[in-house]
Amino acid sequence: MAVEPIPSATGLGSSLPPASARERYEPLDSRSVVEFVRPVLPAAWRAEEIGDGNLNLIFRVFDEHDRTVIVKQALPYLRIVGDSWPLTLERARIEGDALALQDRLAPGLVPRLLGYDADRKAIVMEDLRSFEVWRTELNAQRAYPRAAADVGRFCGQMFMRTSNLLCPPEEWKGLLARSVNPELCAITEDLVFTAPYVDAPSNDVEAHLTAEAEALRNDRELVEAAAALRHQFRTRAEAFIHGDLHTGSVMVSTSGTRMIDPEFAFMGPMGFDSGAVLGNLAMAFIAHWAQGHEPFAATVARDARAFWDALAGSIAELWPADEPWRDRFIANLVTDSAHYAGAKMIRRIVGLAHVSDITGIGDPSVRRRAQAAVLRGGRALVCAPEIADLAGLWKLAVEAV
Amino acid sequence: MAVEPIPSATGLGSSLPPASARERYEPLDSRSVVEFVRPVLPAAWRAEEIGDGNLNLIFRVFDEHDRTVIVKQALPYLRIVGDSWPLTLERARIEGDALALQDRLAPGLVPRLLGYDADRKAIVMEDLRSFEVWRTELNAQRAYPRAAADVGRFCGQMFMRTSNLLCPPEEWKGLLARSVNPELCAITEDLVFTAPYVDAPSNDVEAHLTAEAEALRNDRELVEAAAALRHQFRTRAEAFIHGDLHTGSVMVSTSGTRMIDPEFAFMGPMGFDSGAVLGNLAMAFIAHWAQGHEPFAATVARDARAFWDALAGSIAELWPADEPWRDRFIANLVTDSAHYAGAKMIRRIVGLAHVSDITGIGDPSVRRRAQAAVLRGGRALVCAPEIADLAGLWKLAVEAV
Repeated sequence: MAVEPIPSATGLGSSLPPASARERYEPLDSRSVVEFVRPVLPAAWRAEEIGDGNLNLIFRVFDEHDRTVIVKQALPYLRIVGDSWPLTLERARIEGDALALQDRLAPGLVPRLLGYDADRKAIVMEDLRSFEVWRTELNAQRAYPRAAADVGRFCGQMFMRTSNLLCPPEEWKGLLARSVNPELCAITEDLVFTAPYVDAPSNDVEAHLTAEAEALRNDRELVEAAAALRHQFRTRAEAFIHGDLHTGSVMVSTSGTRMIDPEFAFMGPMGFDSGAVLGNLAMAFIAHWAQGHEPFAATVARDARAFWDALAGSIAELWPADEPWRDRFIANLVTDSAHYAGAKMIRRIVGLAHVSDITGIGDPSVRRRAQAAVLRGGRALVCAPEIADLAGLWKLAVEAV
Repeated sequence: MAVEPIPSATGLGSSLPPASARERYEPLDSRSVVEFVRPVLPAAWRAEEIGDGNLNLIFRVFDEHDRTVIVKQALPYLRIVGDSWPLTLERARIEGDALALQDRLAPGLVPRLLGYDADRKAIVMEDLRSFEVWRTELNAQRAYPRAAADVGRFCGQMFMRTSNLLCPPEEWKGLLARSVNPELCAITEDLVFTAPYVDAPSNDVEAHLTAEAEALRNDRELVEAAAALRHQFRTRAEAFIHGDLHTGSVMVSTSGTRMIDPEFAFMGPMGFDSGAVLGNLAMAFIAHWAQGHEPFAATVARDARAFWDALAGSIAELWPADEPWRDRFIANLVTDSAHYAGAKMIRRIVGLAHVSDITGIGDPSVRRRAQAAVLRGGRALVCAPEIADLAGLWKLAVEAV
């Protein structure tokens, strides 16, 4: 197994209609998109626009037998100011390349990529009509027994297959160079590692949390640890990570699991992905525990264990026989995951973009208790020294509830 | 201060004669090189070829007033097999780009870049006629009081000015992508982190060290630590490092100091450069101590201190005021430096390419004692847990002699 440079991974697009020149980019509409997908859905006959038309146009295209595909096309007007269009073009390329790579290295765990037109900035992919957003299902106390293990396998396969433990150096360095993603990484650096620790205008702090948010900004040990963690996020090019792997980026069903929306992908620290999963599961646990849903909280805790076991199992399976330091590697990964999980938890309470697990708690006093527990768990994780195993991580994450 | 993308840093080449097409690349000769440098040395009139013509052609070009410049042109026949020429072209670009960047960010500490012709793969630079190789001078017990501090300032300035602590994200990621250097990094990965720990054909082990070399390969803790360190070398893109900063890459004089030969440069761990300096100084110390040159050994120890103080001082001076974790950063750097210094020491005894500090010891029993001390010091450093300061590093490095 060897990772090819991403360009060849996106050769799928050649089965689509001839590329129009970049200057002749036009948004698709529900008529033209039908023609557009014919090479991969020959009997296509009608389409519905299903997205909100904000960052992307999203169409569901049907054929005569009611088979469907999804077309996602980047729109040029995400940021009205200045040079938004070139950045948007680049983001569309990144998402297309990322999906192509993930589809090849972790098959069956992302939407199947059916076509990709670099000039039209459009991806044709598997429709996930029968899937639900994992976070929504967790909130509703609906268990998906295979989801957590599938996410763990996704992480393990992507981590190992895009690490230089398996990639030849030339290919790996090519992937590194091609996968720089400055714009989206800058968003993460700001929202996850910086804004929560300063009085940033982007922060969204509920009135009753003002004192907690201020205490956090004055917590020198925490602020230092977060800054050091930001440096690690920026500089540790360990593997091609998803970059935004929270429970809202996971689509679940009884028959399978798919990771979606990889536009934040880049060569970064593995622990950022595994930490995102564990931090979000910890918030789900805390929310349910605070609301008295002990049985489902226990299900979430089992999900965290299933995720980690599948991740560690995939790593063990793919680990090259001549690399003698696997145990040290796994130990480092659990510690890194703890740090990033903590940063993810804190930003979801006092930064921009909260999570419905917590905001959806109707009783204000229960919500406040959950918020405080997430902040304390997050702080404990960010500041933790070396952590031996998942149990140690989970204890720090949730014991404050 | 902001790092520009490297392409613009090499715009200096525009003052040279119009670039010939790549297909029309021709090696310079002592006649054509005179014409070649006229734009930067108008009264040029004769040239001498001074290199060995192995990897590069090197010319010293004189003008009528006996002012000189050096021209270094990459040759296409480094590796006779297969695709050697494209790789050589790329290496020449990397060296030219690296020198241009270093000349701008650490002015006065590398040979002044006077011109760079990307098509001819030729650099025109300051002549270092009045300089000597630091390693040679150390071996001869000649002290250069400013050298160590200059090397420390070079490291500090390059580390900070190419780190994302000072670079805007877009520029930093551009530098990262442009600076991948797979071919030369693969050489380091193999010779420093892999070959000494397996029975590699490239290893050059003196007969009397066979048992020590074998013991080292069977030292599981050491082998694991070296493998983990190789992973860090590959994945920690902290700053634009020189990549081969031993005492043979430092030219010294009473009036100044220059770092040369940056063809191994890439975005890597800072500690690899500072560790190279300290590991090589530790070997110089051990060699002199073993030979009974206590006073000069003490001079070398003072050099190590002067290097570190200048490095830490430069970091402190350039450290952004809003980054609260400087002490942790310096502490991490001393630990990383220790690990890489140890790896450098070990490879110089049982790997390819030994150092004249040790090989130049005439008395076999003294040489053997020095070699054993380098191996023990190197092992202690590679396996060291966190190290608090330079004194802790130095003690581990040299106490075995």
